[in-house]
Amino acid sequence: MNYRAPLRDMRFVIHELFDVSGHCALLGNGLDRELIDGVLDEAARYTGEVVAPLNRNSDEEGVTLVDGAVTTPKGFREAYRQYVENGWASMTGPIEFGGQGFPQLVACNFHEMLMGASLSFRIYSGLTEGAVLALYKHGSPELQAAYLAKLVSGEWTGTMCLTEPQAGTDLALLRTRAEPQVDGSYKVSGSKIFISGGEHDMSENIVHLVLARLPDAPAGVKGISLFLVPKFVANPDGTPGARNALNCGAIEHKMGIKGAATCVMNFDGATGWLVGEPNQGLACMFTMMNDARFQVGLQGLGIAEQAYQGALSYARERLQSRALTGPAQPDKPADPIIVHPDVRRMLLTQKTLVEGCRMLAAYTARQLDLEHGHPDATVRHAAAKRAALLIPIVKAFFTDMGQEVASLGVQVYGGHGYIREWGMEQLMRDSRITQLYEGTNGIQALDLIRRKLLGDGGAELSALQAEFSELCDDQAKRPALRELAATVQARLGEWRELGAEVIAASQRDPQEIGACSVEFLQYSAYVLLAGLWLQAAARAQDALEVGSGEAAFYRAKLQSADFYLRRVLPRASAHREAIRGGAQCLMALDEDSFAF
Amino acid sequence: MNYRAPLRDMRFVIHELFDVSGHCALLGNGLDRELIDGVLDEAARYTGEVVAPLNRNSDEEGVTLVDGAVTTPKGFREAYRQYVENGWASMTGPIEFGGQGFPQLVACNFHEMLMGASLSFRIYSGLTEGAVLALYKHGSPELQAAYLAKLVSGEWTGTMCLTEPQAGTDLALLRTRAEPQVDGSYKVSGSKIFISGGEHDMSENIVHLVLARLPDAPAGVKGISLFLVPKFVANPDGTPGARNALNCGAIEHKMGIKGAATCVMNFDGATGWLVGEPNQGLACMFTMMNDARFQVGLQGLGIAEQAYQGALSYARERLQSRALTGPAQPDKPADPIIVHPDVRRMLLTQKTLVEGCRMLAAYTARQLDLEHGHPDATVRHAAAKRAALLIPIVKAFFTDMGQEVASLGVQVYGGHGYIREWGMEQLMRDSRITQLYEGTNGIQALDLIRRKLLGDGGAELSALQAEFSELCDDQAKRPALRELAATVQARLGEWRELGAEVIAASQRDPQEIGACSVEFLQYSAYVLLAGLWLQAAARAQDALEVGSGEAAFYRAKLQSADFYLRRVLPRASAHREAIRGGAQCLMALDEDSFAF
Repeated sequence: MNYRAPLRDMRFVIHELFDVSGHCALLGNGLDRELIDGVLDEAARYTGEVVAPLNRNSDEEGVTLVDGAVTTPKGFREAYRQYVENGWASMTGPIEFGGQGFPQLVACNFHEMLMGASLSFRIYSGLTEGAVLALYKHGSPELQAAYLAKLVSGEWTGTMCLTEPQAGTDLALLRTRAEPQVDGSYKVSGSKIFISGGEHDMSENIVHLVLARLPDAPAGVKGISLFLVPKFVANPDGTPGARNALNCGAIEHKMGIKGAATCVMNFDGATGWLVGEPNQGLACMFTMMNDARFQVGLQGLGIAEQAYQGALSYARERLQSRALTGPAQPDKPADPIIVHPDVRRMLLTQKTLVEGCRMLAAYTARQLDLEHGHPDATVRHAAAKRAALLIPIVKAFFTDMGQEVASLGVQVYGGHGYIREWGMEQLMRDSRITQLYEGTNGIQALDLIRRKLLGDGGAELSALQAEFSELCDDQAKRPALRELAATVQARLGEWRELGAEVIAASQRDPQEIGACSVEFLQYSAYVLLAGLWLQAAARAQDALEVGSGEAAFYRAKLQSADFYLRRVLPRASAHREAIRGGAQCLMALDEDSFAF
Repeated sequence: MNYRAPLRDMRFVIHELFDVSGHCALLGNGLDRELIDGVLDEAARYTGEVVAPLNRNSDEEGVTLVDGAVTTPKGFREAYRQYVENGWASMTGPIEFGGQGFPQLVACNFHEMLMGASLSFRIYSGLTEGAVLALYKHGSPELQAAYLAKLVSGEWTGTMCLTEPQAGTDLALLRTRAEPQVDGSYKVSGSKIFISGGEHDMSENIVHLVLARLPDAPAGVKGISLFLVPKFVANPDGTPGARNALNCGAIEHKMGIKGAATCVMNFDGATGWLVGEPNQGLACMFTMMNDARFQVGLQGLGIAEQAYQGALSYARERLQSRALTGPAQPDKPADPIIVHPDVRRMLLTQKTLVEGCRMLAAYTARQLDLEHGHPDATVRHAAAKRAALLIPIVKAFFTDMGQEVASLGVQVYGGHGYIREWGMEQLMRDSRITQLYEGTNGIQALDLIRRKLLGDGGAELSALQAEFSELCDDQAKRPALRELAATVQARLGEWRELGAEVIAASQRDPQEIGACSVEFLQYSAYVLLAGLWLQAAARAQDALEVGSGEAAFYRAKLQSADFYLRRVLPRASAHREAIRGGAQCLMALDEDSFAF
């Protein structure tokens, strides 16, 4: 299966919807439109021609572990070499450590492409950026000097070592220990599971960020500290030095992302250094959380785009049965299946979810950039709040969406969708992990309600709703958009009401938090996407009114918006009704009465 | 992972809801409650202890093809030997050919267990019953004498050879040829793909039912005939004779059901015999269609039950985080995750979908039994119409449900759900095929609208709705059920309205048929299940009112009905709104404008 970066749509989103040039000027990073477009063109070439062709084989070949050494699938080493040499690794890294300081609003497009081309390949580099962030924010000058430049360049890769067999969602239960040494270092001992890229052959060193407990640490999450534990301790000259006392004990056999090494990592008194303050490990991890969760959201988006491309090309080629209104291509033995309304329903569902999520990704990326890089502290603070509200939605909704769109891809292929060589079923298997890691989607939803919605009594959500409500008011004045705007405005009103109900119910009964969380997240996402589709329709209408030479592109945007509002947005109604079903019906059943 | 047949719920459904003893008396098959319960107990033992333990390994080991011979996974041959020797194969077969003539209302429970224990194992025998039916209805006395008893006993297995690379959904395109010979036989030549159990080592002979064209056949589906083409031609003494000119050219590498051989079958002038009349092959296939589609529905149900059992047992054992209302088990390091409302939401969604579909399976099985075995032709005719209406719903909804419930199972397991050894992800992979084969779920939905709904102007659907409406009227009189009955009654009214709208729209514009089909099928299924949950609640209320010793069981039924209506049934609203979105938004976009 080929992967072709959706450059036209990406340009529509970053330039026409979110004015990336103005955004860059505001951030003062010196990037202009020509440079950005050039980078994305080159990114499309790299991901489409270098990375994507490796993906199918990586699933069949998988990874092997022999004597503690992991061998990655054919081609991964070479593709990673190019990734480092051509500067893809350092795209978002801090400039003072050799990074290029690209904003997320640009980088998220490259990262989406990378996920779409091969999630397995991306996983090896995917956590390095988070490690850079954590070290940059919390590491000592000595640790930064020794490790940061190599991580930024991608010559060394990073991992996050959180999970232990008994401690997944609940990090309070973690047992890995760190004993202080006289030289200021620590001896880290314990076993971590599900470590993505914990061991591999693509970089000369691997830097693990490990959560562990100090000897005198309080119980629970308040006694967790963060340590940097390298595979090879850095020499003063920047080369990898002594081999550390850690190893990969096993690799998991998984449903998908078989080209990615998911490792059991054993630390046997391995030398490490504290990152940040003692017992503040969780706070340090939170630094990377937004970034990591945003990246996982992009994984769902990237795979979904790939699935849509596959389904579309199959639907245009596969000849089977005649259109319901009579032969569309009478000269052929049958019509291409794209003539069938139900096949179009599947394709348009894929298309409008993918493009809708791409707009929301860009919206969120812009907030992340403002949070980290705007000169004005008030703007930074406001953007941080907005990003924090959106991140759990992006992570959970995009990855659920990725699974749905991949499954629709399989369905469009019919029986062939189930056969490995056609590539569609791999996308379902690969994307399924994204709903589980970096906090399951249920955990994202709890975060949305507990920390984000109840955290400020719904103030930030109201601000977001007001922004889209204003858009509706503006666009309702245009005859071509009146109906779309009215539909979105009505949903915004519903959303406000529902948010207030959820807050009231949660304050009355804490069980309501978990009873409504997933449904409220889903509801919110569908309405948010509706707002963004209205925005897209507005830009498309602008372009058509001034007589764009790309009329077909803009008409397709209007038609897609119409489809989304008529055929996808109705799902919000089901979520709303389910929320109103309340918690009682969830909690009534005795544990023993679930089965007889 | 263990599989334990849900015997208590099965007994509730067949005895308490559908009075299987009275049903058997009506059919005159001499089966009583004791016998039926005994058979199901033994079925639970066979599937739980003999079949289920083979399933995990069968996925890892897969099947191999060497020199045209397929080797099945370890244990399959022995388990199949028991399947034949202990009479499981012949359960539903016609008595005059050695079958036991069990009604579907009993057999569907055994078949659900078999699917739940191992879909891969079941696939080898799953089409034999259809082959028996076709041969029994349409075969010549000579063919019946030579092949039927062996197929009924399971000593020989059957296949269905329909699909060709260019002809999947659209059988009009098939090319396999049959040349008449002077002895009345035919030489069949062509290549068939996706043949389940086309070759294997579990039975001494394999009998293929093959769709092919006679030399003078008209084009399209009116020129297709059905042939029996055995691997070994039967000797007069009932032993396998001469090897026929057919072979397995390849086996598919699939997403799941890896223990099942999915074969490319090449027929090179293989000897075959006509089944039924020339050019009536499709009509003959239709004989087995209801049965085969019902069986695939049961596959979704069986896998869903297995996934629910796995998720429930994990949710009761896995300790992670504390309940939202404070520690539920303060003596343990954390609470079992079943305390969390969102985990309960997932489990109860699984439970109520599984139990709801089990009721609908039994409802449908009863109609199939009446269609085939009731002494009164009027009853047979009425049951045939009801079964025909329900079969596409059962096939499509149960298999979509199976995929959802398996995916929820993975989600409950968190990261462990993604790891092969835990067994949950296999259920997702295995169940995914059920949405594709025996007619994709999109094709089922078209069948529902085109043949079933438009075929009689909605008369049969109205009769079904009236039946449940009457139930609502009756139960609305009981204070404990008033609210449930009102909810269901309201949906029935909506359903009537929606059905009329769909018929009117489809008559106005044929594109509306395919535009609403999947959504209407889903809508109908959710409301049907609501009706059945009301029926279950009514029986539970009866039992509680007379002071049943199993109060917990019946209370759980009432609570489950309440959950279903409050938290699952709302999905119907989304489907209804989407249907009203109409066809125009699906057909507007130019084929070239799907991507730029």
